[in-house]
Amino acid sequence: MATSAKKYRFLLIQPFQIPGNSKYYLSREGLPKEKRLMNYDNVKHLLADVEWDLDEGPVAPYGDWAVENREEFCLVAAGRIPIVRAACESGRYNAIVLLGGGEPAFLESLEIGRKYGVAVTSNASSQMHIACLLGNKFSVIDFAESHNMYYRSLIIQHRFADRCASIRNIGYYHPRPGYEGEPYLNQEKAKALRGEDSQAVETAVKEAEAALSEDGAEVITFGCSGVFWLQPFVQKGLLEKGWEVPVLEGYSCAIELAKLKVNLGLTVSGITFPDDRPKQRPRKVVL
Amino acid sequence: MATSAKKYRFLLIQPFQIPGNSKYYLSREGLPKEKRLMNYDNVKHLLADVEWDLDEGPVAPYGDWAVENREEFCLVAAGRIPIVRAACESGRYNAIVLLGGGEPAFLESLEIGRKYGVAVTSNASSQMHIACLLGNKFSVIDFAESHNMYYRSLIIQHRFADRCASIRNIGYYHPRPGYEGEPYLNQEKAKALRGEDSQAVETAVKEAEAALSEDGAEVITFGCSGVFWLQPFVQKGLLEKGWEVPVLEGYSCAIELAKLKVNLGLTVSGITFPDDRPKQRPRKVVL
Amino acid sequence: MATSAKKYRFLLIQPFQIPGNSKYYLSREGLPKEKRLMNYDNVKHLLADVEWDLDEGPVAPYGDWAVENREEFCLVAAGRIPIVRAACESGRYNAIVLLGGGEPAFLESLEIGRKYGVAVTSNASSQMHIACLLGNKFSVIDFAESHNMYYRSLIIQHRFADRCASIRNIGYYHPRPGYEGEPYLNQEKAKALRGEDSQAVETAVKEAEAALSEDGAEVITFGCSGVFWLQPFVQKGLLEKGWEVPVLEGYSCAIELAKLKVNLGLTVSGITFPDDRPKQRPRKVVL
Amino acid sequence: MATSAKKYRFLLIQPFQIPGNSKYYLSREGLPKEKRLMNYDNVKHLLADVEWDLDEGPVAPYGDWAVENREEFCLVAAGRIPIVRAACESGRYNAIVLLGGGEPAFLESLEIGRKYGVAVTSNASSQMHIACLLGNKFSVIDFAESHNMYYRSLIIQHRFADRCASIRNIGYYHPRPGYEGEPYLNQEKAKALRGEDSQAVETAVKEAEAALSEDGAEVITFGCSGVFWLQPFVQKGLLEKGWEVPVLEGYSCAIELAKLKVNLGLTVSGITFPDDRPKQRPRKVVL
Amino acid sequence: MATSAKKYRFLLIQPFQIPGNSKYYLSREGLPKEKRLMNYDNVKHLLADVEWDLDEGPVAPYGDWAVENREEFCLVAAGRIPIVRAACESGRYNAIVLLGGGEPAFLESLEIGRKYGVAVTSNASSQMHIACLLGNKFSVIDFAESHNMYYRSLIIQHRFADRCASIRNIGYYHPRPGYEGEPYLNQEKAKALRGEDSQAVETAVKEAEAALSEDGAEVITFGCSGVFWLQPFVQKGLLEKGWEVPVLEGYSCAIELAKLKVNLGLTVSGITFPDDRPKQRPRKVVL
Amino acid sequence: MATSAKKYRFLLIQPFQIPGNSKYYLSREGLPKEKRLMNYDNVKHLLADVEWDLDEGPVAPYGDWAVENREEFCLVAAGRIPIVRAACESGRYNAIVLLGGGEPAFLESLEIGRKYGVAVTSNASSQMHIACLLGNKFSVIDFAESHNMYYRSLIIQHRFADRCASIRNIGYYHPRPGYEGEPYLNQEKAKALRGEDSQAVETAVKEAEAALSEDGAEVITFGCSGVFWLQPFVQKGLLEKGWEVPVLEGYSCAIELAKLKVNLGLTVSGITFPDDRPKQRPRKVVL
Repeated sequence: MATSAKKYRFLLIQPFQIPGNSKYYLSREGLPKEKRLMNYDNVKHLLADVEWDLDEGPVAPYGDWAVENREEFCLVAAGRIPIVRAACESGRYNAIVLLGGGEPAFLESLEIGRKYGVAVTSNASSQMHIACLLGNKFSVIDFAESHNMYYRSLIIQHRFADRCASIRNIGYYHPRPGYEGEPYLNQEKAKALRGEDSQAVETAVKEAEAALSEDGAEVITFGCSGVFWLQPFVQKGLLEKGWEVPVLEGYSCAIELAKLKVNLGLTVSGITFPDDRPKQRPRKVVL
Repeated sequence: MATSAKKYRFLLIQPFQIPGNSKYYLSREGLPKEKRLMNYDNVKHLLADVEWDLDEGPVAPYGDWAVENREEFCLVAAGRIPIVRAACESGRYNAIVLLGGGEPAFLESLEIGRKYGVAVTSNASSQMHIACLLGNKFSVIDFAESHNMYYRSLIIQHRFADRCASIRNIGYYHPRPGYEGEPYLNQEKAKALRGEDSQAVETAVKEAEAALSEDGAEVITFGCSGVFWLQPFVQKGLLEKGWEVPVLEGYSCAIELAKLKVNLGLTVSGITFPDDRPKQRPRKVVL
Repeated sequence: MATSAKKYRFLLIQPFQIPGNSKYYLSREGLPKEKRLMNYDNVKHLLADVEWDLDEGPVAPYGDWAVENREEFCLVAAGRIPIVRAACESGRYNAIVLLGGGEPAFLESLEIGRKYGVAVTSNASSQMHIACLLGNKFSVIDFAESHNMYYRSLIIQHRFADRCASIRNIGYYHPRPGYEGEPYLNQEKAKALRGEDSQAVETAVKEAEAALSEDGAEVITFGCSGVFWLQPFVQKGLLEKGWEVPVLEGYSCAIELAKLKVNLGLTVSGITFPDDRPKQRPRKVVL
Repeated sequence: MATSAKKYRFLLIQPFQIPGNSKYYLSREGLPKEKRLMNYDNVKHLLADVEWDLDEGPVAPYGDWAVENREEFCLVAAGRIPIVRAACESGRYNAIVLLGGGEPAFLESLEIGRKYGVAVTSNASSQMHIACLLGNKFSVIDFAESHNMYYRSLIIQHRFADRCASIRNIGYYHPRPGYEGEPYLNQEKAKALRGEDSQAVETAVKEAEAALSEDGAEVITFGCSGVFWLQPFVQKGLLEKGWEVPVLEGYSCAIELAKLKVNLGLTVSGITFPDDRPKQRPRKVVL
Repeated sequence: MATSAKKYRFLLIQPFQIPGNSKYYLSREGLPKEKRLMNYDNVKHLLADVEWDLDEGPVAPYGDWAVENREEFCLVAAGRIPIVRAACESGRYNAIVLLGGGEPAFLESLEIGRKYGVAVTSNASSQMHIACLLGNKFSVIDFAESHNMYYRSLIIQHRFADRCASIRNIGYYHPRPGYEGEPYLNQEKAKALRGEDSQAVETAVKEAEAALSEDGAEVITFGCSGVFWLQPFVQKGLLEKGWEVPVLEGYSCAIELAKLKVNLGLTVSGITFPDDRPKQRPRKVVL
Repeated sequence: MATSAKKYRFLLIQPFQIPGNSKYYLSREGLPKEKRLMNYDNVKHLLADVEWDLDEGPVAPYGDWAVENREEFCLVAAGRIPIVRAACESGRYNAIVLLGGGEPAFLESLEIGRKYGVAVTSNASSQMHIACLLGNKFSVIDFAESHNMYYRSLIIQHRFADRCASIRNIGYYHPRPGYEGEPYLNQEKAKALRGEDSQAVETAVKEAEAALSEDGAEVITFGCSGVFWLQPFVQKGLLEKGWEVPVLEGYSCAIELAKLKVNLGLTVSGITFPDDRPKQRPRKVVL
């Protein structure tokens, strides 16, 4: 990125990449960044005043399928750290936006970013913070049980346990060896984008409505970035049923919080994410 | 405000006004909006891309001094409501920024604003939300015991009780009949702006440091807007002592959250702030 | 009220009045206080040892219909404050009982009352406190979604969030311009008092039972004072179904807590509701 | 007690008695009930409209000293149960007031009392409930570490953990074999009642002030009934220092809540304290 | 018990005994300890490395039926205390395992045990602690409403309220005078052990599944020791339905935690369960 | 490990290793496992009935110093995963004990272990669980601010936030390039083991005492495994000052909980740590 007149200079980092021709994961290699960024059309107006690069993220070390369980998330988290560190050291960015609903290496990136004055935001925590601006509790539309439970750990870690009404699972999986022939969420997405009926959309609307009606949710969010494309469809579906509630997704929330942090000159607290040898420390750390 | 090329069209509304020559309150009547907005220099870069008007707020019905206790806050809250309603009805604004640390009529304005698709933000809640992006707990630097306790009610209402480490009082009051001769905070501000030593700055830094060292705060915020001017001085004072923590104030936080809401097309949830006859309701309301 | 031999000298204050002939609100103008106090028969034994006056409350400034949403509650709250202040200044009362489920201006009245040594109680908080003497959690039978959500804010403010199982809505509204022809709760009340079947009673019993069976409620309370008349009917209906649980309503609870405060010589804490210039303050305010 | 014109017919039950001449415990055998009720002068105005009997409680089975630790509390709790049951069966009382700060057998007595329609109140829970009417948090002035910890269990059991700021210990003990020569709290009481300086009063005021200033207490209560006599002295001492906060003690609070329950016709919820074979039960019990 | 080479020397204490021929309770008098210990086969492998005695517990003072409500639990709790004290004084045991789901006198026994360096564990708390090692929330399968509510008090007391998803009742009772002819849980047990269909097993599996599917439980535990025999049947039933979750019962959990405490040389904290005259105390007790 | 008569077959895994001659980290290469396991003497009695291997853990990829901040912890966590997976696949172990106070990859290892029926325990969570068996709250003695804050995240993740009184920092660091000449904790350890005065011991006792006296701790634990050696010294120091409280450290707690899990046949819940395609899932995931 050359020096820019724009005030926002962001690096968007994918959670992982699967190089080559995987039968389990859609490669976007060689495409322009706008094609490589999922659901670009949903956020292009938000990126209009941003100079942005897109990093493809670390190569998944465990195989050629998408990250889904804790083991896989930990492995790509470690892979992301050198990318974040290099981006901070480059001096080219004032914010890093971590892509991916499970936000691997987010806390670590906040720690690194603060040392360089670079703001960092991520998809899960951004949705949670913004949801709490808008209503009492949020629910999460997600898929894959292992991801649901990993995501719950994120909610707990960010101290939103009492603001989350539920995580509801729409019943798909990322393709993975040994489970060939499962229904494929990307096909549902393609159908929906073509204006056709989609089982995934229908289920997501139904689960979102159940979250609002039964669980106490007042705002809808999404878990895995693999379901962020559902946002406009669920928003529309809920409105048609009379539910006038915000439906959030992770990319837009993380981009906007990154702008907010840049505008206010903020990274994170140096007590919360201290230097290796901070100048001051509290008498004791409390919970 | 004429039709504008800018995407942000904000009305900033003061909590109250004291017309005429009060000995207890500084009149800014007749001045341009930039002079009427307290500490304008601290936020002018944030308003650069905003078309904004400034409403002076309702005339305080109880007397010619600043609002400080619950009784007074309730009275000016009611006075603010017609202003908010008229602004929404005018169609001129896409967001309303309520000025004043005690944010009178904030919840009511969220209710009204949603009916018109107008985002509303306010000073106390905005600081709290942003503080929780940055660290585990925040403290509030404030003055006047009655205001401290009123402000605590806001923290509870916004469900940040477990994220607030403390409210610390620096020991001044708004001038009020019957208490002539008290030390006057505006004189402290004038001293500080002239580069002189200020007892208020010194106390605020000391209390902020105590909040960080003893109470578990990791971010500093301010309560009454009468102390928002302290923000750069406390930030500087803490850094000099080795505390690398964010120090927030209400105007900047509320302006930036208003932008975020406008960019994301958000007001609040229609379940949380329902119409008088909403199309849907949850089976039950939970806490 | 002349000087009395009775130890209780109470002023009961209505939340608002609608003068003249409103098609949306039943006027009780010109009637004796016993006729103006809703459901007097339910509490007359509790008032037998009380010298009491009834204040009709402030004229609703927004129109000629009952208060229901946040905007309207804030406006009548401000209207109530001078009444409370005058009552305290008069020296005629040792307690003020605020009528109305939404208890507008309750916290403000506690603040004022303490300065004069006058106890203040109100309908929502009184039910909550007494319910927690009796069982683990309570539910609230209420109507009108905007009122439900406003009422939830009261529960949060009074720190009973973890003691409230649910707010359940029986599906009526206060009459309001633009919504002519809706079923009218007062007709249900009339039917019930005549010993006829009432849809409102039936729904209230059903929702109360659902709260007990499904939500974890162990005590039943009511929200808007417009449903306090249901108390004996819901108590009876639940007993007939085998549920031996207390069913509370606001007037009786507030009257009895006012007596308790008077007997014990209590208003509220001077730390919680301080004077404008209190003699002492805590080192810091905690949540 | 003969049939009475008074609406309140209360049995006050001591936690235990030590018959004979104990060197560790003051016998009140053979005295009229007004002499046997500790600090009668502090509550006689509250008992003026009550027909009351005083039961001396069970004989302490462990020895001739006052109850202080968990083991001793459990033993006298069991001893109290037949007394409560007999009182309920007698039909003579509409309420039972359990005396003693540690309220042995309170939950059991609520269970028994409900079966007979007899209200039951006790000293610890009554103070906690009333304190929460008055301020955000209360502290407990108490003595004896084993009692402090037992009392904490009561606070947890009654779900007031987040409303209790601290338990502060003034450093005395009930006399007990093996610890002869310790300073004796009853001597402090005698000094105070004679108008002399008392170390216990001084310490209690100092600890109460620390609770208010440092711990976040806004209301003061007492733990063991052995310190209830301090109530007027601590109230006075705090006022002299400028702390305008309520100071509660257990007898008066329990008597007034018993009246409230009787007036409202309440015992406890039949879900919370069910019959052995209740007619209904919730689908599941929640916390 | 003679001096032993085994490192574990445990006394298992029954909650109560019913001597003679009761029609409401199965006497095991005169049998060897292995026959007197319910469901011995389920725990014999855990007792293989333990030298253990079995105390029959106190004679129930209220009658010849099993303990079920609060009144009865309090009475047997007091009866258990001398047994615990004598066992500690004997020096023969390094741990006491209190049998019985309602764990009467557990906190009292911890207090006594610490004075003698004897570890104490019990059935309810042990299940709760171990369940929280394994999943986010547990549910409790139990019977008898009065026991459910008593058990809830234990959960609150042990501070597991936010880790318990529900208590679910399978609809039986301990036999009790006045209720002859009720279905008898021991007959269900006999059927299940003979390999026949059992209504109790079926209901327990159904309620456990509902807890997992609807309430948020991730681990299953049992309440009254009268249902501990269900553990292997519910474990098997859930696995057959595809639920791979731990199912705990009280004896095994308490035995293993007793071993853990003995191995680590632990009883309980001397602050939490202090001596009558401890050498140190905290400045204040917090919740 | 050959087939063993012992029931416990454990693999202990170090958090990381620094091969070669680092000036920042003590190499134990080539020594027998008993010399490579820190503070072996403190746990050898607990390992007496265990067949155990010691894995040196992953090579630290970031440099030749000990892990201390979030970035470093994430990197070694990823490195540990293949070791855990291989150990599970080997079929040689019935439990894995993760060494290291920061327990990198613990949740991931629980996920992996369940698939193989292998129990996993770790140092931080084990101390927390056992501490809550013993007292109301625990404090953590730790060093290095970045580690304190990372450790706080563990406490939150394990849902012990309301059971942790404080984390107290004794003021040392792991050696790290760029900070030569800092006081070295291992020298303190050597002094203490030789029976000499040690500043680290003195500070740890002082901070532990402050945690007990001021913060509300009733049990002491340790954070980084680099301070586990302090356990006997702090225990002794506290006892000398009159504080009779348990002092825990991570190795012993994790070993004993591993035994408990093995004896009870437990890993973790399959809802909490599901397979990639579990047979069942809850209707919704709750917090």
